[in-house]
Amino acid sequence: MPHAVNDEALDTTFRTARSQNKWLDKPVSPALLMAVYDLMRFGPTSANCSPARIVFLASQESKERLKPYLLPSNIEKSMTAPVVAVVGYDLDFPQYLPRLFPHNPGAKDWFGDPVLRETTAFRNGTLQGGYFIIAARALGLDCGPMSGFNNAAVDREFFAGTNVKSNFICGVGYGDPSGVFARSPRLGFDEACRIL
Amino acid sequence: MPHAVNDEALDTTFRTARSQNKWLDKPVSPALLMAVYDLMRFGPTSANCSPARIVFLASQESKERLKPYLLPSNIEKSMTAPVVAVVGYDLDFPQYLPRLFPHNPGAKDWFGDPVLRETTAFRNGTLQGGYFIIAARALGLDCGPMSGFNNAAVDREFFAGTNVKSNFICGVGYGDPSGVFARSPRLGFDEACRIL
Repeated sequence: MPHAVNDEALDTTFRTARSQNKWLDKPVSPALLMAVYDLMRFGPTSANCSPARIVFLASQESKERLKPYLLPSNIEKSMTAPVVAVVGYDLDFPQYLPRLFPHNPGAKDWFGDPVLRETTAFRNGTLQGGYFIIAARALGLDCGPMSGFNNAAVDREFFAGTNVKSNFICGVGYGDPSGVFARSPRLGFDEACRIL
Repeated sequence: MPHAVNDEALDTTFRTARSQNKWLDKPVSPALLMAVYDLMRFGPTSANCSPARIVFLASQESKERLKPYLLPSNIEKSMTAPVVAVVGYDLDFPQYLPRLFPHNPGAKDWFGDPVLRETTAFRNGTLQGGYFIIAARALGLDCGPMSGFNNAAVDREFFAGTNVKSNFICGVGYGDPSGVFARSPRLGFDEACRIL
């Protein structure tokens, strides 16, 4: 079977990549964070709505602002990560659609229903969260995604005055292999998929 | 800046990959669909909960079952796609946690709250949907993801008797470049991200 992408890249992005719990003392530059965004932003979203918003906590000071809202088991690995990305989604995404989806100038009016707007923002912002993780790995970074935190408090702390809601957080840096768990099993094809 | 993954792979998975509207008459084998799953399943999920479930509609007969529930603008491109993947998420994911998350045998009891269970399934099932799209591209396939369909009807048609909910659908095959729109703009780093 021909692979469009070589085996080493498949390993880096999926097969041998692991969620990190301990981090090497090696910084992540702003330029690299921008490069990750510059890749992930090309991933597809519904009507190109692109609702993901990311706050990169790259200083000890900004990570301390997150600390009170973390589940205890997530504190140490967040405080020692070179960067913690707070990945959110913007409920006000429709305002950008005239620019992001020029094929249809009326697209911004498709999302008047608040449930549809919330579902669309969460679904597509999360797809972009998946692209973020894979893009970071593709550029040589390791990730440690976490959802154990107080979302409402994080929204107040980092997204005040906006309609952005926090989705998940993700340690970003270079992992210390000594902190990685044994690889857990995955569901087999026949358990998760059917071909009709 | 050193790239862990070569530029060609970054193009294939993100930069030059495009959502498809027209398809070449070239089949996709079950073995290739299994290879896509075998990559995507290694992407991280919360407590390795892995809630994504996929029904691959790979026959004209199974695609016809989907047809009545599609938004009119999604019919032609779905019916002509070699495969349409119905990506869902399983609200009953906690039952698999004793096997999927052996670090903590009590993990299956973390999700008794129905709102947390739904949010966890939707978030992590959608992350896996993002992994699916990138994994398919990495293996040389093109995708055409869509969310314009009647979710409740699709749930009844393809997930009856389960607690799986449809999330999005995705044409899978080899795209005909003549059906691709001009690349739409993306938000700049400063519009979508902040570094603190």
